[in-house]
Amino acid sequence: MKQNRVNAVLRHLEQLGLSQMLITDPISIFYLTGRMIHPLERFYGLYLSRRGDHRIFINQLESVPEDLGVEKVRFSDTDPYLDLVAETVDHREPLGVDKNMAARFLLPLMERSAASGFVLSSLAVDRARAVKDEDEQALMRRASQLNDAALEQLRPWIQEGVSEVDLAERLKGIYRELGADGLSFPPLVAFGRNAADGHHWPNDTRLKPGDCVLIDAGCTYQGYCSDMTRTYFYRSVTPQQRQVYELVRLANERAEQAVRPGIPLRELDKIARDTIASAGFGPCFTHRLGHFIGVEDHEFGDVSAAAEDLAEPGNIFSIEPGIYLEGCLGVRIEDLVLVTEDGCEILNRLPKELEIIA
Amino acid sequence: MKQNRVNAVLRHLEQLGLSQMLITDPISIFYLTGRMIHPLERFYGLYLSRRGDHRIFINQLESVPEDLGVEKVRFSDTDPYLDLVAETVDHREPLGVDKNMAARFLLPLMERSAASGFVLSSLAVDRARAVKDEDEQALMRRASQLNDAALEQLRPWIQEGVSEVDLAERLKGIYRELGADGLSFPPLVAFGRNAADGHHWPNDTRLKPGDCVLIDAGCTYQGYCSDMTRTYFYRSVTPQQRQVYELVRLANERAEQAVRPGIPLRELDKIARDTIASAGFGPCFTHRLGHFIGVEDHEFGDVSAAAEDLAEPGNIFSIEPGIYLEGCLGVRIEDLVLVTEDGCEILNRLPKELEIIA
Repeated sequence: MKQNRVNAVLRHLEQLGLSQMLITDPISIFYLTGRMIHPLERFYGLYLSRRGDHRIFINQLESVPEDLGVEKVRFSDTDPYLDLVAETVDHREPLGVDKNMAARFLLPLMERSAASGFVLSSLAVDRARAVKDEDEQALMRRASQLNDAALEQLRPWIQEGVSEVDLAERLKGIYRELGADGLSFPPLVAFGRNAADGHHWPNDTRLKPGDCVLIDAGCTYQGYCSDMTRTYFYRSVTPQQRQVYELVRLANERAEQAVRPGIPLRELDKIARDTIASAGFGPCFTHRLGHFIGVEDHEFGDVSAAAEDLAEPGNIFSIEPGIYLEGCLGVRIEDLVLVTEDGCEILNRLPKELEIIA
Repeated sequence: MKQNRVNAVLRHLEQLGLSQMLITDPISIFYLTGRMIHPLERFYGLYLSRRGDHRIFINQLESVPEDLGVEKVRFSDTDPYLDLVAETVDHREPLGVDKNMAARFLLPLMERSAASGFVLSSLAVDRARAVKDEDEQALMRRASQLNDAALEQLRPWIQEGVSEVDLAERLKGIYRELGADGLSFPPLVAFGRNAADGHHWPNDTRLKPGDCVLIDAGCTYQGYCSDMTRTYFYRSVTPQQRQVYELVRLANERAEQAVRPGIPLRELDKIARDTIASAGFGPCFTHRLGHFIGVEDHEFGDVSAAAEDLAEPGNIFSIEPGIYLEGCLGVRIEDLVLVTEDGCEILNRLPKELEIIA
């Protein structure tokens, strides 16, 4: 168990007026224990309590290390494992549960009156996960270094006639060769007008002179995600393409320069949005500026006009303004930033100057 | 809406003593409507009632066809959509819910006393899905034809020095070229001793003479899954490899020959298991004989020693006996079979005679 992370969850739980919680999201359990288990349809849960009598419930079919740092309750498929959970929970107190906890576990626990009430409390874990500790920061840094290197290595493959699917597949191969352990999400590659379509998926469209090349991709390193977007131009660039590109770059850079502890996250969105709107492209920036990221590509916490939180040291989120001209062109430039004590560290180092690939 | 499928669900619901159900599994909703929506974290639900006042609840951000054949209730992210659900449900009756329904939807509906009780009733949908109608049978047939063709086209790539990952990636490319719309699951390719490891994942292991080559893979066609395993030998085969292969083939063929309406599914498992055990390899057949399959690769319904159901026309499941000799060799041969009125149709046509690839 990562004790500092458990303590953070318990602190947030107390703020919600709760003394105990049952966490069933395997990714949140990975965050708290450092071990990933894919339970499929089997029950898997971590019980945390302010009394300190934490328990982890794991099917015997799963192999787990001895030194998990929390008392294990093992059970077989035929054991009454929800009885074991009900015996552990303090039935005089309400129990916090994950927002995604499945009805097939929740309803039987309610029938057993395992707690005095059942309350959604994912927020306690979400808020802990939003502040990365030093170990996590190191892994996120490494994942983004791999992502920078991968996009750099993909460059020679951006040639006339290559298809979006070809580039996406090559990028996946490069991630593997670099030692990434997986993808944050399937790589998005879009040429020309396809880059303006927010629902586009790589297909057999082939690259031709004059196209923009939008690549939005990320790999994982020891379970932690990277996520970056770069937009290139192939062979030539029109004045309009250049204007749009430079505007997006300016929005990206201005927002990144403003990141520091205490700044409202909605203010970052506003800085980027005002930059784009000032040149008349406001309606073409159709999404929020960014999202939090960590053991999942999209985590709790967003950087939008509706965001209510302030940036705090340890937050890691994306800064990804874009302009989309339907049927014509799409430009997005995205980095991950880590909020530091006095500003921010930009985790992506790949250049952002306009590049015409010859 | 696919009225025959809705009627089947309502029939099974009645057997469970229920008059209404809220289905939130997007795959089950696809089965009933023919339209796939990936709601991500948004609410998405299909309410079915024996009174016939069915409703589908869909966020306005999703695009759906006009002619869905069921009354739509659209809502935005800020609308009180669970109030709309609560108003639709008959609060004097218990409500069946999906086994995977998320706590963040279930708990608020309970707080609103939307029904007189909440009961797990996935079984009603599972039992309907286990019997494929003619449209589904045609799609499953086509998916398996594509799978046969893909494995056939992969053959020339099985050459000395090729890696497991290379073959798996090539197979994915072939599926795309053939017009499949996705994968049933990531292709498994295992050489030599790797084929004996039930948890093996394709890696950089390279093919060498004397290896067995186990390929377990499937693609989807209009959302329906195929799934097949073939095991080849590269360059040469030892007497032991041949003995194991022929035994697995015999187990596969005997079980397939026995498939007909009314036969207990556990009897099929026993036929294959007895065949393998009779030659002393019983302990090396470490898994059940098969699983049901359709819009998901693994669906409700299994073919094992613990199965309690009888085969019925329209069932489609796998027959996949295997023998695994740790550190040495693994052989599995898998086809999908469709139970017909008087026997079965084997959906895979790829030959099963022992093949030595030269």
